This record gives sequence, structure tokens and C-alpha cells, in this order.
Amino acid sequence: MQQKRVSEAVIRRLPKYYRNLLSLEALGTERISSSELAARMRLNPSQVRQDFNCFGGFGQQGYGYNVKTLLDQIRKILTDDTRHTAIVIGAGHIGQALAFFEGFERDGVSVRALFDIDERVVGTQVNGRPVLHVDALEDYIRENDIDIGIIAARRSVAQGMTERMAAAGIKGVWNFAPEDVISDIPVESVNLSDSLLCLLFHMKNDAKDEA
Amino acid sequence: MQQKRVSEAVIRRLPKYYRNLLSLEALGTERISSSELAARMRLNPSQVRQDFNCFGGFGQQGYGYNVKTLLDQIRKILTDDTRHTAIVIGAGHIGQALAFFEGFERDGVSVRALFDIDERVVGTQVNGRPVLHVDALEDYIRENDIDIGIIAARRSVAQGMTERMAAAGIKGVWNFAPEDVISDIPVESVNLSDSLLCLLFHMKNDAKDEA
Repeated sequence: MQQKRVSEAVIRRLPKYYRNLLSLEALGTERISSSELAARMRLNPSQVRQDFNCFGGFGQQGYGYNVKTLLDQIRKILTDDTRHTAIVIGAGHIGQALAFFEGFERDGVSVRALFDIDERVVGTQVNGRPVLHVDALEDYIRENDIDIGIIAARRSVAQGMTERMAAAGIKGVWNFAPEDVISDIPVESVNLSDSLLCLLFHMKNDAKDEA
Repeated sequence: MQQKRVSEAVIRRLPKYYRNLLSLEALGTERISSSELAARMRLNPSQVRQDFNCFGGFGQQGYGYNVKTLLDQIRKILTDDTRHTAIVIGAGHIGQALAFFEGFERDGVSVRALFDIDERVVGTQVNGRPVLHVDALEDYIRENDIDIGIIAARRSVAQGMTERMAAAGIKGVWNFAPEDVISDIPVESVNLSDSLLCLLFHMKNDAKDEA
């Protein structure tokens, strides 16, 4: 399949398509038109067709899409079938919640260990995973062929931890620290404070728009 | 200040401006040009000026922006000075982590209680907040004038919980369930599975682009 340079906005919609198609498949739906899929996702039908055209298009227009085929194609774009191994930096509340995150399983990601510097948690276990000292970070990554580093630590260490993990061979970072991290490897950030501020913005301004 | 209809993309950059300006203020920086701010945030200078123009512009071009003034103006756009009260639906791992989330303080949000249906956690406390039974949800919202509902529960209950909370007077929903929720009140979603898939996409495809 020919794949053009795809914009970040399209990439961010792919998981949403994937999720909706999984639901449709579970409901037993075999075919869906771009209009029906668009209505379900609150997008314009032309947006859906444009998005799919970025990846060479997925079906014959007018006939709709085969749900199972479309799902397979989007899955192949999003991820390959290789398993991923991850570690979590920071065994605080967010780090612990991520060690229990059920969403990893579906996407083939397995969390192997957590890292911290707090002697009260180093040596304990979270959801069956060991909490190790950060001093052992690079050796652990190399010896266990870890490819995803999840940062659930203070913002001040996010950049440094990313650099250490990238140097040790990590292939991607999932960053929960409220700090923009810069790296040659992919970094996906979940900034809870930014998200909360967006909610407060809409709470303040949307009502005003309607008034 | 005149405020045009602002695109969601601009809104999502506002917290990032805010965060960077807070850091600059902490460093004692008094003035900054759009080019310097853009470089810091890895945006085009013209993007920064365009974004600020959505809100009527914030300074005299050529002189740069006064950091403190700009910070105050963006803060006023993002949120007002009113305090917010929140509840968390679901006292599982994510719900508990959110009850401890330190980012609420800065934005004036105070979490008052958690709700669950599991009799093993109802009646306990998380970070000093009571875990109550979901049966008491509407009464609690009305009696305590709660304005933010945080959903950290199973996807199957996300839509129903949003409707119950909105009917009881909640003004905004912060949704952590992996399900798109539809409501007349603002809903801000943090979909961890979608975010993880975006990371996997970049890990798979960015390397290929460079090859």
C-alpha cells in the first residue's frame, strides 16, 4: 500500500477509527459506508475519505468498506505484530496506575519493571512487576531488550531520563511528566495539566458563546 | 479583549504557551519576542503571532511581549479565578492516581470525593477523600455544588455517567474511559489507548521514513 507523508492530525484520528471499527465488528456489522462511519465519529464523510486516501484508500467508493478488511488495514498501519516491552520510570501514583493499565494487552505491550529512586519502594512489586533502582536503568534496558520507556516521574527528570533511555536503546517514550521532551526517538506525551486547562477553557467559554 | 471563534488546535496550544511562559517567568525573563517563544516551543514565529491574533493580539510587534502581562492574559483566557470542585467516578487505579494528582492545585480544582459501586472500596478514603456509593451521586453533586466530573471507570458506563452528572448540574467532564462521550456540556477526553497507538505508529513508521 502506498503511504504518503501523513499529517499528525490524521495520525491522531487513526486510533479513533480503529476503536469504532472494533465496536462495529463486535456488533457483527460487515460493511459500512464513509457516511455512516463519519456520522458515528462526528466527522464529515469527506474527512473520512480524505483520511483514508492518505493511505491509498481502502475500498471502492459507493460500495462502502468491509469492516474486517478495513480494521486489518488500519491495524497494520498503526502497529506491527511484534510484541513490545516497556518499563515505567516512577513508581508513584501515576506509575502504579500505568503498571495496572489494561489497555497494554490489546496492543501487545508488556510492562516488565518500574524504576524509582525512593528506597521505600525500590525492592517492592507493583502488579507483579519489580520496582528497581534507577541506577540499574541502562543495564536493564539492554539486557531485557526493552523498547518503550514510560515516564511517570517529576518534570525535572523527564528530559534526562529520555536521553538515558534513548542512549540505552529504547525506541519510543510515552511521557506523562508535564514537560515537553525533545528527542530523536518518538515521544508521545500525555499532559494531564494541559488537558485539564482545555476543559476549563471550554467550561468558561462555550457557555458564553451560546449566550 | 475581542475574541474571535477560536479553532480547537489553537485552544490546545494555549496551555503549552501558558506552561512555557510560567517557566520564563520563573527564570526572571521580562520580555520575549514571538521568534524566541516560537523557538522554545518548536513552532513557527508566524504561528505564534497568528495564535495570539485570535485573541486580539497581545503586544506591539517588534517590541516583544511582556512575559508577566502575556501570562496574565493567557491565564484569563484559559480559566477564571473561580475555584472548581470535582468528583472522580471510579476508585480503581486511575481514579486513585487522579485523587493524588498535584496538577489540580495550580488551576484551582479541588477533588471532593470518589464514587464506586464496589463494596470493598465504598466507605474507605483515598488521599483524605471519601469513596461513596454511586447511588448517592446526584444528591452529592447538588448538595456540594460540584462542577467537574472525572470519569475513571469502565467504558461501558462513561456515557451513562456523563448523562447522570450533567442532569445533576455538572458543568464539564474529564473523561479517562476509552470511549467517546457525547454531551451538551464540555467533555475533555484523555484516551490512553489512543495515545499508546499513536506512539506505536510513530515507532513503526518514523524509522521507515528515515531509511
